[in-house]
Amino acid sequence: MKRTVFALVAVAVVAGVVACIGPAYGQANQEAAPVFVTRIPPGYRDWRLISVAHEEGSLHSFSAMLGNDVAIKAYREGKLTFPDGTIIAALHYRHEPSAENNKVFGQAQSFVPGAPTNIQFMVKDSTKYAATGGWGFAFFIDGKPAPAASMTSCFPCHNQAKASDLVFTHYAP
Amino acid sequence: MKRTVFALVAVAVVAGVVACIGPAYGQANQEAAPVFVTRIPPGYRDWRLISVAHEEGSLHSFSAMLGNDVAIKAYREGKLTFPDGTIIAALHYRHEPSAENNKVFGQAQSFVPGAPTNIQFMVKDSTKYAATGGWGFAFFIDGKPAPAASMTSCFPCHNQAKASDLVFTHYAP
Repeated sequence: MKRTVFALVAVAVVAGVVACIGPAYGQANQEAAPVFVTRIPPGYRDWRLISVAHEEGSLHSFSAMLGNDVAIKAYREGKLTFPDGTIIAALHYRHEPSAENNKVFGQAQSFVPGAPTNIQFMVKDSTKYAATGGWGFAFFIDGKPAPAASMTSCFPCHNQAKASDLVFTHYAP
Repeated sequence: MKRTVFALVAVAVVAGVVACIGPAYGQANQEAAPVFVTRIPPGYRDWRLISVAHEEGSLHSFSAMLGNDVAIKAYREGKLTFPDGTIIAALHYRHEPSAENNKVFGQAQSFVPGAPTNIQFMVKDSTKYAATGGWGFAFFIDGKPAPAASMTSCFPCHNQAKASDLVFTHYAP
């Protein structure tokens, strides 16, 4: 059981597009310990679409990125940096072939979301999350927050996207 | 120019997950000519997410399916058939590698939506669209309806998904 949980966390860590992929969090930040988001923002499944993503390699991950009203407004106005109150959700699923669709199309061509793997959030609060670029990172598996240890890679990776305020996802028209 | 338009239409026809893929429309339906949807439903980009999809083969198509309130309610309640008033939108983009993301990840693994290719809709009105299973099909390229000839494949293909009221897309939790 413990092994299964760790395996899931490992997959989820590398599968994250919005939040948690990348090298371990450096030792230099110990004096300003990152604060993580530990509650799922309510109503996120009703938010509007930002874009979709697909990660291969060993991941086979299919994602939809949704934004709350503040996020969508900022994206549409091309506002950088994102204002406090912005929340971006990344819903991750396994990227799986659709036998059902392929049968109709007469060839193997169709991929759809399989089982959900995790949900990640970025919450902008430039005061509360000052130690991690103004963004609080969140990472849930089966509705439960992932261990803090698996969250330490979020910021160092996203910090490489400085030109877009630490956000990788662009808005799909 | 004409060649470009036709090429785009051809790609779009085969790239469609929600509406228009498949064999040509049969001769047997000539007495009940299908009625197509020729206006883009307003506000569709604000609708909620149903799911995402990815088509390979020669397509390289990345899709997000959105639903109006009637559609989302029916999906969440597992209602079949979909009630009149349901509209499902399929936003199609090229499925493209993200050089920007791959640079951060240190390997080629990331795919994102490229240029939009077309937008398709299925509109449920069991009276108006009785000849095509109660669904009106729509297909827009650059905001303009595709030629009617390219719409004739929508219904015969979707008609193979009878068990799910002619809809291929399942709701992503």
